[in-house]
Amino acid sequence: MSTLILLRHGHSEWNALNLFTGWVDVDLNEQGLQEALRAPELLREAGLLPDVSHTSLLRRAIRTAEITLNGIDRHWIPVKRSWRLNERHYGALQGKDKKATLEEFGEEQFMTWRRSYSTPPPALADDSEFSQVGDARYADLPSELMPRTECLADVLVRMLPYWYDQIVPDLRADRTVLVTAHGNSLRALVKHLDGLGEDEVVGLNIPTGIPLVYDLDDDLVPTQRGGQYLDPDAAAAAIAAVANQGR
Amino acid sequence: MSTLILLRHGHSEWNALNLFTGWVDVDLNEQGLQEALRAPELLREAGLLPDVSHTSLLRRAIRTAEITLNGIDRHWIPVKRSWRLNERHYGALQGKDKKATLEEFGEEQFMTWRRSYSTPPPALADDSEFSQVGDARYADLPSELMPRTECLADVLVRMLPYWYDQIVPDLRADRTVLVTAHGNSLRALVKHLDGLGEDEVVGLNIPTGIPLVYDLDDDLVPTQRGGQYLDPDAAAAAIAAVANQGR
Repeated sequence: MSTLILLRHGHSEWNALNLFTGWVDVDLNEQGLQEALRAPELLREAGLLPDVSHTSLLRRAIRTAEITLNGIDRHWIPVKRSWRLNERHYGALQGKDKKATLEEFGEEQFMTWRRSYSTPPPALADDSEFSQVGDARYADLPSELMPRTECLADVLVRMLPYWYDQIVPDLRADRTVLVTAHGNSLRALVKHLDGLGEDEVVGLNIPTGIPLVYDLDDDLVPTQRGGQYLDPDAAAAAIAAVANQGR
Repeated sequence: MSTLILLRHGHSEWNALNLFTGWVDVDLNEQGLQEALRAPELLREAGLLPDVSHTSLLRRAIRTAEITLNGIDRHWIPVKRSWRLNERHYGALQGKDKKATLEEFGEEQFMTWRRSYSTPPPALADDSEFSQVGDARYADLPSELMPRTECLADVLVRMLPYWYDQIVPDLRADRTVLVTAHGNSLRALVKHLDGLGEDEVVGLNIPTGIPLVYDLDDDLVPTQRGGQYLDPDAAAAAIAAVANQGR
């Protein structure tokens, strides 16, 4: 049996500005830093000590992982990173104000882009100031692999090779694995782990800053579907708050 | 030609307390954090962007590397760590007050332990509160490899395999390599790079927080002996201050 800990980074500077972020590399804001400081407390209380850390290539996840590991004296464990754990690429919406986008395109189109499983927003132009084409950290990605927009289905397709090739071997070696990433890359992973249908994952929300722990059997199937949040009450409250946002 | 950047972490909590530190995993203090913030400014001014980061397993080096890389938007580069880059193990002196040690053993013995090339302090007992035997991060080290005390000659011997097996391949791949470590592990590396004699390395001091840059030729020989500090005036002043400490 092996243990997988999923951690979604907290609030970033662009949350506060109400902008679509995606692959734009904004930092945590003060609230996000505070959320990152709560995670190690919860891990410590649960007696969970990660042996290896996986992160995206984005600062808000990297810093969350660093703060979390520093807080439980595991700053020294091996670190692996990949663009495959990045947030969903939000296409032409990256850098746009959410309220203005809602008004421009209407609620149905807006919610489709935000929540549908297989409809991506329009592609982001490579010469946009919010494009990551040309960013040194993606220099090894051939152009056809570099996203210009993504739906959740696209995220699952590009995330899974990292799961199988990098995370699963660590789990097979009986390591406790911490994956610090983003709302949508973690939703994709949970869809895979729990075998969620497309309709189910559309309604799935993963709260920020609360470690979600999966115990996996020898076939890497969760012993408990949905895993366990280390602060279940706070997680339930956060999920309810998101569910009520649209009402 | 390849570029190697050496960075010594700054002041730690035990510098302020005047205690021997060695392998004890103390954090940076406020002054050390400020020193870590200066390094990315110097790298940015010099146009130097590391492609890969190597650190010890000790928090003061790890945090210095994290702060430095975050400050130049290179937080996403691959990270490798090893106990072989750790500070010199200070043996039975770890956790002791420097002034009290000087008074107890006299200046000659004190300076021999601090500065001689091949005389280690007495070994630290495994049951000491300042021992790292049993620390999870060294769980893969067989007991005969785990230091209980070290002189600088010992540091060179245990550091060199990491240089040859992990750092050199990165340099051969034309990567700009950042090594963030400690006074004595970096002195050992500089001894090797510059071909210093035992007497020469005894007088070598590496200032904290100022990147030291080596351009290496195809045989990994420095094009300029001693490398180049990114703030040569500050480096010279820091070196002079250390040289005058004993007077």
